[in-house]
Amino acid sequence: MQNLAELTAFFDELADTSGAVILPYFRAALAVENKLAGGAYDPVTVADRSAEQAMRALIEARYPAHGILGEEFGAARADADTVWVLDPIDGTRAFISGLPVWGTLIGLTEGGKPALGMMHQPFTRERFFGDCRSARYKGPDGERAIKTRACADLSDAVLFCTTPAMFNAEDRAAYDRVEAAVRLARYGVDCYAYCMVAAGQVDLVIEGSLQPYDIVPLIPVIEGAGGVVTNWTGGPATAGGRVVASGDPRLHEKALAKLAAG
Amino acid sequence: MQNLAELTAFFDELADTSGAVILPYFRAALAVENKLAGGAYDPVTVADRSAEQAMRALIEARYPAHGILGEEFGAARADADTVWVLDPIDGTRAFISGLPVWGTLIGLTEGGKPALGMMHQPFTRERFFGDCRSARYKGPDGERAIKTRACADLSDAVLFCTTPAMFNAEDRAAYDRVEAAVRLARYGVDCYAYCMVAAGQVDLVIEGSLQPYDIVPLIPVIEGAGGVVTNWTGGPATAGGRVVASGDPRLHEKALAKLAAG
Repeated sequence: MQNLAELTAFFDELADTSGAVILPYFRAALAVENKLAGGAYDPVTVADRSAEQAMRALIEARYPAHGILGEEFGAARADADTVWVLDPIDGTRAFISGLPVWGTLIGLTEGGKPALGMMHQPFTRERFFGDCRSARYKGPDGERAIKTRACADLSDAVLFCTTPAMFNAEDRAAYDRVEAAVRLARYGVDCYAYCMVAAGQVDLVIEGSLQPYDIVPLIPVIEGAGGVVTNWTGGPATAGGRVVASGDPRLHEKALAKLAAG
Repeated sequence: MQNLAELTAFFDELADTSGAVILPYFRAALAVENKLAGGAYDPVTVADRSAEQAMRALIEARYPAHGILGEEFGAARADADTVWVLDPIDGTRAFISGLPVWGTLIGLTEGGKPALGMMHQPFTRERFFGDCRSARYKGPDGERAIKTRACADLSDAVLFCTTPAMFNAEDRAAYDRVEAAVRLARYGVDCYAYCMVAAGQVDLVIEGSLQPYDIVPLIPVIEGAGGVVTNWTGGPATAGGRVVASGDPRLHEKALAKLAAG
């Protein structure tokens, strides 16, 4: 790892900048009406693209040798050892519905492995940051280290999934087996659910159809807080696709077994 | 209506007090661990009961002749002409999962009809208030009048429902007919979804199994913003049960027709 303190401060700089770009478009009612009236102007796309451009400009200026993989503008120097992974607005449907459970995802990989990551929610002014060994939270209710909570069994677990509509029929059946076994299952909230696993509020997130930038920035946060993130067969989640995140490694084993027991 | 300015200020006082009581229990990780370990201590119940007690004490002191209907402590002077309707934590599952989409609902009925209502989210510091003729929002992004948005057709509508698990089989089939007809359907967010209808971000909320205190405080907000709230057959929603809230009266007609066309 390069200078951790410098990189950490730079994450905050990226979050400050992207938040300032995005927030004016959140709940921009008139802009949404324009869209519904058939206009070409789509505020969430404008916010997404503008925020990624701003972050890319900062990265290019500060770390010109680093690679960048962004949701909106693709890859630059993808073969660099250090690559930034950016998703300016994860949870665009929450964003367009006015719900403060979308987030800006900023990740850093080294040698292809997630090393540092942040979820920033500029409306609630919350940041979740992790470096795979530790994780911390900063928000209106203070700043603190965060840890996942113990939860060894599916029957005690709180499960989140953005929407069951994200699965094909076979995967939906597998997901439903887990959902039937947990204490409480809820839908919604995209990246926010993974941060609640890291903060010890939720035990399990199971999703499908993810892009790498949807999950890579969250891995250092969840792992740093003591959790586990893999794909449904226990391999690395860095490629996206079908992902399981658990606060407790014992729970993770049981979730993988239940998903596989088709 | 009695002195509107005085009552409006008193709504803010109730919100300030209940928020101060509830917030220390939100994301109280240690307390949740106690609960999971089998202890009798349940932070959401303690927060719920303490906040209702605090609000009831304020109401008893200021308006001793008014009635009170609360989620936790039931009815007092329910036959009074003016009755306060209180749900300290609407969205307890969001609350225990650390998500900031629960809310404190405070309503006032006169002659059995909803007259004033507020949703307060103390973590995001947002208040939605309505008097059936107007509605306004106050939050970290400012204070403003809110209005529902125009959306005449189901095919253009954004629909929310806390969870389809709240319906029996017959009602689920009716709900599914509407869901299949809309532009975007999302789950989650309890009272927050109704406020997004009032704020012109969401077009439609369809739910079932509601209690009166789940919906009565929201009716003056939605109607004040230009929306419509009824039960599934077009009658008053004040008794709870199956509820439809729409931002546009034309959309409301179509949602009711689709629910009925079984």
